[in-house]
Amino acid sequence: MERLAAGCVVDEDITEILAEINRRAEYYTTSSCSGRIVLISLPEAGAKKEARFVAKWHRPVSFEELQNALKFWVAGGRDRGELWLLAQPPIIHVTARDLSSAERILKAAAAAGFKYSSIKSVSADKTVVEILSTERMDVPLGVGGEVLCDEHFLRFVLGRANFVLRRGKRKLEKLLVMLKEL
Amino acid sequence: MERLAAGCVVDEDITEILAEINRRAEYYTTSSCSGRIVLISLPEAGAKKEARFVAKWHRPVSFEELQNALKFWVAGGRDRGELWLLAQPPIIHVTARDLSSAERILKAAAAAGFKYSSIKSVSADKTVVEILSTERMDVPLGVGGEVLCDEHFLRFVLGRANFVLRRGKRKLEKLLVMLKEL
Repeated sequence: MERLAAGCVVDEDITEILAEINRRAEYYTTSSCSGRIVLISLPEAGAKKEARFVAKWHRPVSFEELQNALKFWVAGGRDRGELWLLAQPPIIHVTARDLSSAERILKAAAAAGFKYSSIKSVSADKTVVEILSTERMDVPLGVGGEVLCDEHFLRFVLGRANFVLRRGKRKLEKLLVMLKEL
Repeated sequence: MERLAAGCVVDEDITEILAEINRRAEYYTTSSCSGRIVLISLPEAGAKKEARFVAKWHRPVSFEELQNALKFWVAGGRDRGELWLLAQPPIIHVTARDLSSAERILKAAAAAGFKYSSIKSVSADKTVVEILSTERMDVPLGVGGEVLCDEHFLRFVLGRANFVLRRGKRKLEKLLVMLKEL
């Protein structure tokens, strides 16, 4: 069960899938996220490596929640660098016992619509599979403590982010079905 | 040389890399793109599968070029669905003779900063590697023939897209160095 604790905290949308994978002798999961909407602050243009989270949600976000997070970022002033809103798809890292086990779960993931799934590394005793879907957004919103778009556009962007997030989460249901047939 | 013709048309930023890969007996490339900025129109919310290109550039884009492409989209009226601006990183698909050749080129790609690289499929006689970098943007700009942000924000977004594009292209130089040492 310790394996299930890896990845995002409190991420109930994905626990059943992790259990379905981990009950099999040939697989174990090492990290996962059911999809999320995040606000990140980049100290300098495009340096995503040094990104700091301003806010993080594993569910659709209300406009009021977004506004509060933006206020917090704006209050940080010019030092805040660039602000980006990201919507990220579900992701699961699975270690498979061998290459043929890896290919089997990869095929199930592809059939469930996780089209960015792949093998990340291969060694004699294990193969690491990344199950990944395509639904994402990467939107720059402002720089130097200033949000550069108006409320009307922010509402539009947030609507799209929530749509993209829900679409990714819905695919998890299909993934569970495909995994049960594995 | 026919292999080199695959992928984007007129994409000079990547030809030297393709030649470097294809001159080796254990690899051949099947498709590639050096990175691009595109405007796409989605018939319905989030249905990227049915996306139509409004414009496509393999180089940094001027604000006037973006404006002209937006005008073209707006002229299409309500039927145009959703408009998105995407910046996409370099991508190269390489078929390797065997798994160990695949792992070797995967390692070179990772060392050059292509951190989303992976093995897409494995079979008895070939392994398909995707060399992929991380620099990207996916920004919704409008819907139903209406651009929902103002010129100030558009200039900001385009600046970020050009930055992201250049960053991806710069990594190609490092990739070429790593491939030569392969």
